[in-house]
Amino acid sequence: MKRIERVGVSLDKKLLSMFDKLIAKRGYQSRSEAIRDLIRQQISEDRLNNPKAKAVAAVCLVYDHHSTKLMDRLIDLQHSHLLQTISSLHIHLDEHDCLEVIVLRGRVGEINKMAENIVSLKGVKLGRINLVAAEPG
Amino acid sequence: MKRIERVGVSLDKKLLSMFDKLIAKRGYQSRSEAIRDLIRQQISEDRLNNPKAKAVAAVCLVYDHHSTKLMDRLIDLQHSHLLQTISSLHIHLDEHDCLEVIVLRGRVGEINKMAENIVSLKGVKLGRINLVAAEPG
Amino acid sequence: MKRIERVGVSLDKKLLSMFDKLIAKRGYQSRSEAIRDLIRQQISEDRLNNPKAKAVAAVCLVYDHHSTKLMDRLIDLQHSHLLQTISSLHIHLDEHDCLEVIVLRGRVGEINKMAENIVSLKGVKLGRINLVAAEPG
Amino acid sequence: MKRIERVGVSLDKKLLSMFDKLIAKRGYQSRSEAIRDLIRQQISEDRLNNPKAKAVAAVCLVYDHHSTKLMDRLIDLQHSHLLQTISSLHIHLDEHDCLEVIVLRGRVGEINKMAENIVSLKGVKLGRINLVAAEPG
Repeated sequence: MKRIERVGVSLDKKLLSMFDKLIAKRGYQSRSEAIRDLIRQQISEDRLNNPKAKAVAAVCLVYDHHSTKLMDRLIDLQHSHLLQTISSLHIHLDEHDCLEVIVLRGRVGEINKMAENIVSLKGVKLGRINLVAAEPG
Repeated sequence: MKRIERVGVSLDKKLLSMFDKLIAKRGYQSRSEAIRDLIRQQISEDRLNNPKAKAVAAVCLVYDHHSTKLMDRLIDLQHSHLLQTISSLHIHLDEHDCLEVIVLRGRVGEINKMAENIVSLKGVKLGRINLVAAEPG
Repeated sequence: MKRIERVGVSLDKKLLSMFDKLIAKRGYQSRSEAIRDLIRQQISEDRLNNPKAKAVAAVCLVYDHHSTKLMDRLIDLQHSHLLQTISSLHIHLDEHDCLEVIVLRGRVGEINKMAENIVSLKGVKLGRINLVAAEPG
Repeated sequence: MKRIERVGVSLDKKLLSMFDKLIAKRGYQSRSEAIRDLIRQQISEDRLNNPKAKAVAAVCLVYDHHSTKLMDRLIDLQHSHLLQTISSLHIHLDEHDCLEVIVLRGRVGEINKMAENIVSLKGVKLGRINLVAAEPG
């Protein structure tokens, strides 16, 4: 069972009214929910700034699947002993290009290093890394 | 057959030497390849700033799968007539949380709007949107 | 006189304890103050995404002051009828380079357009634009 | 005297034509100039990711000048022995709020730490830090 605490926040009336408009626009059903999200994002960003923190990342790549050796090197990178690929998703965008989303676990620093390596591979047209979740421990 | 042109760039010797070090660190095999990547990124960023541009996006969500109505609403959002979900990938992170990566096509403006809506759903702990590719047309 | 309202937020005990650690690290003296900052940032970011919103921006440029025509063009840009330069600050970084911070008012869209123009001027080595404040109206 | 080298880049004709459009929109007068800027930005970003790199930063703050002790604490922070304030610029935005731009030198890690501390001071409404230039050494 989760234990819940209640925190009080004092807010200028004008600021509160702007916040209410913003969260209505975004579809939140309560202020409490919106503030919890802000807090969670802040904590998560702070953790993901630490190169040693454990994280899950989604690496998104667009590449030309005619690039012969690229696939092999991508697979090598995914089998690095520092990172653990959980799963991947492959989509054909057009006759040349594929999008591949690779979800992996590892330390923030290692993930970023691997991302730099992947983006520089011949044939990779765009690469984005999304640190999506911090993990305890 | 692709038609290739050759462009000459004048670079200060010191700047060039710093660039060579950087691209070596990132694993590039030629300057040409590294410069092409910079150019492609710049073009892509510029396009993805236009709300009307067509794009492919990878939406990454972390959510608590005990949140009863969340899955239904996620599916509703994916079936909006403005966006077209291409594929999705679902991963169990721990006993509470899932990571879902949804790849979809649509206009940049619509994708961003949907992303804001998804992130505000009760039960969604983190949401990131990755505009990964601009599309012609 | 400012009118203050009090908002209650329910938070999981574990999340609250992580938040307390984070705000202690950042030097906040109360949760209320930290949450107000999160809310203000969110509102501000949302506004600054609207190209028509009025804003104040700090444009930071690094440039080579030997570039003859650059200063003239910078001054022209600052005297555009769409933007209003409030003030600027000039610093000599080394024998070649200057840092100039230009604070100006205008619509977000116009500010961004001008920033793109400034960054592309010959002699400008780096340019960053900081939308620092949204203005009412 | 600066020594210049010439580098050749092979580019797909279609990519080149998109690049030409983009740089025309941004006001560049040559491809060479636009590519140099991309290279410089890349090198600068890479350096500024290193917490130990020396840098110049422009810190932009919006704060309520009625907050009594804030000014004193800002001045204390600027006199830290790890950072060296070069100059600052102060602007009255409205009857409550001021914008202050503080230009300082220091290591990237120290600058970021100070920025977090400043943003959390009571009375500071918004804070942005702009690492504008990497310095040799």
